[in-house]
Amino acid sequence: MQIGMMGLGRMGANMVRRLLHDGHECVVYDINADQVDLLVAEGAVGAISVEDFVSKLRKPACAWVMLPAAVTGPNVDALAKLMTAGDIIIDGGNSHYHDAVDKAAELSAKGIDYVDVGTSGGVWGLERGYCLMIGGPARAIRLLDPVFATLAPGASEQTSPQSENYPTQQRGYLHCGPSGAGHFVKMIHNGIEYGMMAAYAEGMTIIKAAGSGLQKRSANAETSPLATPQYYKFDIDLAAVAEVWRHGSVISSWLLDLTAEALRQDPRLSDYSGRVSDSGEGRWTVNAAIDTGVPAPVLSAALFQRFSSQGGSEYGDKLLSAMRFAFGGHHEKSRDEP
Amino acid sequence: MQIGMMGLGRMGANMVRRLLHDGHECVVYDINADQVDLLVAEGAVGAISVEDFVSKLRKPACAWVMLPAAVTGPNVDALAKLMTAGDIIIDGGNSHYHDAVDKAAELSAKGIDYVDVGTSGGVWGLERGYCLMIGGPARAIRLLDPVFATLAPGASEQTSPQSENYPTQQRGYLHCGPSGAGHFVKMIHNGIEYGMMAAYAEGMTIIKAAGSGLQKRSANAETSPLATPQYYKFDIDLAAVAEVWRHGSVISSWLLDLTAEALRQDPRLSDYSGRVSDSGEGRWTVNAAIDTGVPAPVLSAALFQRFSSQGGSEYGDKLLSAMRFAFGGHHEKSRDEP
Amino acid sequence: MQIGMMGLGRMGANMVRRLLHDGHECVVYDINADQVDLLVAEGAVGAISVEDFVSKLRKPACAWVMLPAAVTGPNVDALAKLMTAGDIIIDGGNSHYHDAVDKAAELSAKGIDYVDVGTSGGVWGLERGYCLMIGGPARAIRLLDPVFATLAPGASEQTSPQSENYPTQQRGYLHCGPSGAGHFVKMIHNGIEYGMMAAYAEGMTIIKAAGSGLQKRSANAETSPLATPQYYKFDIDLAAVAEVWRHGSVISSWLLDLTAEALRQDPRLSDYSGRVSDSGEGRWTVNAAIDTGVPAPVLSAALFQRFSSQGGSEYGDKLLSAMRFAFGGHHEKSRDEP
Amino acid sequence: MQIGMMGLGRMGANMVRRLLHDGHECVVYDINADQVDLLVAEGAVGAISVEDFVSKLRKPACAWVMLPAAVTGPNVDALAKLMTAGDIIIDGGNSHYHDAVDKAAELSAKGIDYVDVGTSGGVWGLERGYCLMIGGPARAIRLLDPVFATLAPGASEQTSPQSENYPTQQRGYLHCGPSGAGHFVKMIHNGIEYGMMAAYAEGMTIIKAAGSGLQKRSANAETSPLATPQYYKFDIDLAAVAEVWRHGSVISSWLLDLTAEALRQDPRLSDYSGRVSDSGEGRWTVNAAIDTGVPAPVLSAALFQRFSSQGGSEYGDKLLSAMRFAFGGHHEKSRDEP
Repeated sequence: MQIGMMGLGRMGANMVRRLLHDGHECVVYDINADQVDLLVAEGAVGAISVEDFVSKLRKPACAWVMLPAAVTGPNVDALAKLMTAGDIIIDGGNSHYHDAVDKAAELSAKGIDYVDVGTSGGVWGLERGYCLMIGGPARAIRLLDPVFATLAPGASEQTSPQSENYPTQQRGYLHCGPSGAGHFVKMIHNGIEYGMMAAYAEGMTIIKAAGSGLQKRSANAETSPLATPQYYKFDIDLAAVAEVWRHGSVISSWLLDLTAEALRQDPRLSDYSGRVSDSGEGRWTVNAAIDTGVPAPVLSAALFQRFSSQGGSEYGDKLLSAMRFAFGGHHEKSRDEP
Repeated sequence: MQIGMMGLGRMGANMVRRLLHDGHECVVYDINADQVDLLVAEGAVGAISVEDFVSKLRKPACAWVMLPAAVTGPNVDALAKLMTAGDIIIDGGNSHYHDAVDKAAELSAKGIDYVDVGTSGGVWGLERGYCLMIGGPARAIRLLDPVFATLAPGASEQTSPQSENYPTQQRGYLHCGPSGAGHFVKMIHNGIEYGMMAAYAEGMTIIKAAGSGLQKRSANAETSPLATPQYYKFDIDLAAVAEVWRHGSVISSWLLDLTAEALRQDPRLSDYSGRVSDSGEGRWTVNAAIDTGVPAPVLSAALFQRFSSQGGSEYGDKLLSAMRFAFGGHHEKSRDEP
Repeated sequence: MQIGMMGLGRMGANMVRRLLHDGHECVVYDINADQVDLLVAEGAVGAISVEDFVSKLRKPACAWVMLPAAVTGPNVDALAKLMTAGDIIIDGGNSHYHDAVDKAAELSAKGIDYVDVGTSGGVWGLERGYCLMIGGPARAIRLLDPVFATLAPGASEQTSPQSENYPTQQRGYLHCGPSGAGHFVKMIHNGIEYGMMAAYAEGMTIIKAAGSGLQKRSANAETSPLATPQYYKFDIDLAAVAEVWRHGSVISSWLLDLTAEALRQDPRLSDYSGRVSDSGEGRWTVNAAIDTGVPAPVLSAALFQRFSSQGGSEYGDKLLSAMRFAFGGHHEKSRDEP
Repeated sequence: MQIGMMGLGRMGANMVRRLLHDGHECVVYDINADQVDLLVAEGAVGAISVEDFVSKLRKPACAWVMLPAAVTGPNVDALAKLMTAGDIIIDGGNSHYHDAVDKAAELSAKGIDYVDVGTSGGVWGLERGYCLMIGGPARAIRLLDPVFATLAPGASEQTSPQSENYPTQQRGYLHCGPSGAGHFVKMIHNGIEYGMMAAYAEGMTIIKAAGSGLQKRSANAETSPLATPQYYKFDIDLAAVAEVWRHGSVISSWLLDLTAEALRQDPRLSDYSGRVSDSGEGRWTVNAAIDTGVPAPVLSAALFQRFSSQGGSEYGDKLLSAMRFAFGGHHEKSRDEP
């Protein structure tokens, strides 16, 4: 079928490729014309403006927006102005699901269907397919089924939906509920991702510290001594450990596959400084937990560790040292002391 | 090769089966004679006592102990008394790695090698193979290689070690270091497992609460109202979500496979009360983090949530309510109020 | 000076009493006429409707609203309709500071000043005075200074402000910034309160468990044994401990004073079930931490423990048990087993 | 009464002063002879060796050891060798309570009583008195009562114990139980201290971030934008806030008193780098929580934040960045970017 793609970054461009490869017609647009040209060369139909983009879409027009959350809103508005009742706008980016709920309500007055698609798979999606978590009106979801089927991993055998509840989840895409439900489920997905990543990171760091009994440590009132150095004399190959866990262990996962490969390339991870970004969905997950009264100690701890890596606890840490000095006369140890 | 197995519970019995199936000779012993008989019927050599067990092992005797942590120590001691220099005792249970460090030092005086094997794979290991994390002297590890190769998932092609650093990790077993290193790595493995499990559980619980805006909630000074009910009107199929995440998402994993199956069978999980046991290794992992000064906020949060599910915070919660009454005159809400 | 008080619950009524006692004129209103009558008998001027209430206030009218957060908005609107430029509305309740920011912007168009006052002190404020955290325009804050001075603890000596930056904080009230700043600081105050309360509760619970080595515990694969029972044979008097900490220790505090008294009355806390409510500000504090990228592991952990006490982790706990059964065949222990 | 003090550091020396001032006779010893001379000049009896120290103590000899945990053990052993049945050794340092349990059992065979005293009060104890948490045999505790009464805050009126259960806690000292109970209670005290300190530090850091909406922030896929900058335009005086909370608020405490003073002197805390030491008791507290199955999410989060400030999460953070690059092609932001 025909589908428009607006936003040809890392994610959008690869999705177009996967769609083209499966025989779909793609109209593409990006503010960066080079990106458009690249995909035209691969078989897409290029557009030079939003107007041009919309005019090239047959009715009902289906426009997929794949942009950073911060600029999605205005671009959706620009599209909506040019579209008519029966058309469909799909937001496949990492927008807040609140936006989808609000925008869907707004556009439904004009008869435009708003579909939010949480898209997981990252840079591997072109090859493996994308896991799609979808929210929106059933009519639009049914219409878009061929596109979802192609983008998702199990797209090899093209199937047509028998009923409204067809088990697409086994092929990697799911209609989760009304508008917003797709981004809601994607948000939680990313929240869980933070937790899993942190679990591996903490565990690996403890293994790395398994040799700390081999080093001399100073004994003073400001440092907790290693009480049992005899139990910390290991020098364990982290890359080998990550690899062995991939085979038959309870904690095997795709994240572990990637971790093992990263450690194989450089177990010291010297290309990284350890400033871990977060792109919003981990935050929103904890907000949702708070709104609904669900304890999320693990997901929040993972989020806060990232904040800490970004320097967010600097002032608080100074205040702790100031208190220690105030009540106990404790002087800070130098940052370079072991 | 010949191997003795002491302890024929869920894990030990299946390991014997996997070994027999691959052509090894297994001498088996358990205090429960029925368990011995069962495996004799499947081709094992039975023993009726520890003495009988050891006497049936050819030199150098290799005895694998697969018992609950609490009884492993005395049984290893009983074995060791009957063994001679050059023999090998393997502890494949969930013992504390400290015990392996200590026991190895003790037995090395007698010339007995002590090998600790962390074994992951649970009830699925018979079919999938077990991920093995191994600690101990290189000589013993080399001798036992055929056994490890059979138990691990990649055992189909029998290989012989070329060098001391052969890449067995790709077939699912790894010599991690000296005695204790195997159980150390297994301990961390389980700590990570706790964190991953909690990440999924928290995320799923938030999705389940995504419909909380559909219910009426009381407005009073003791309850935080749901400020934005319009964003919590979803009724999402948890089993379908778990399934879709298995296909192409960043959080796909074996634990997710099991979760999807459990939710498919009963999304209400009505067979469970929510009292989550812990068998020790999550605790030891946090202890090791504390010893070495590694922050483990995620792994500890996962552990403490289990303690909470076991009732460990009851008194503390009462104390919080008592404080709230003392400073603010706040009365507790009934447990049955929404 | 003259001040109107709308909302005569636990907090509002006592604040009127403190103001009357210090010679202020109070016009009071509540939808419950009995509450009005009670305070009229103590010297207040009663009102029978919002209209009556506003009509009895001399210009510039100063109306203090002391209502639950959920009903504050509509009541402020009703008041604002009857007021004119130069009048002042004070919100002394536990409203979200966002509301103060928004409402102040809205009312400033009409020339009405909006002042938000975070009020701490609970049921003890009548006697001890209230700690006041104030946001709003400087003009209004100066005008209201006599009221703040009376309500705050250090009100005995009436002082008049010399400059815009007078050091009132030493007497227990502070102009924190523009509208919203008062409730912002109060929000954080309550967030800290959650953290402190949880710190005491956790510590006390561990002391209570200091005798767990005296009990027999089962040894099975589902339970982590108490490895060192010899170190857990204490029977410590919690009430005495709370009391001794009040005298010269680093952790003495007013919350500890209250805790010691509660434990003195009943160390078993048998009047409480352990369902700990939260009234919103702990949640907003964590939201603010998330918005600004500040790690708040302690404040969030305290919040989530309350959610847990309210039953919020039930489904997640069941899911953990379901996973354990799926990979390891582990059966849940009964809730009644030790 | 006569008491020996071994170890004349910050704590020991001041305790001797407080004892001398109240009329006790103090025999003092330290490996640093200058420290001995200093206190001899103030009225103490000096010793030049452990032998000399013990020989100057009248029977039953009472020797108080006030040394860093790491060197307490050998010094106690040296003392014990020179002492006889009926003598008393008091450990007033921050030793692990396990040591007290073990040492008491060992020394009881010789008839020597071992008393462990957790001592809180820091550099302020000389003036305010020390809060004392005491473990040991009742006979020894009774004998030492005059010393405890002097060291504790409420020492002005000398009282003699009427019964074994005299309410000394109101004067700042408490016999908590058998040997080890004193250090156990002190351990928990410090654990709570960590939690309270972190609660204040996190809250203050959020207030400091209340102006983050005033700054420009970049919008890209690697950074979560500040969605609602309009609510983060405050510039709040932290020192004033800490001060106002001291007066009538629910979170007033001695730690807050110290915090307010530190912020008054330098609200930027520029003397501190934010490397927060921990001296062991926070770790032991979490270990005890783990041993007894008590959830301690707040106390552990406070501990782990300190580890994080010490650099303990560096490797784990790098691993998180490596994973993000692996699945999403995300490049780390520079540490200097906002």
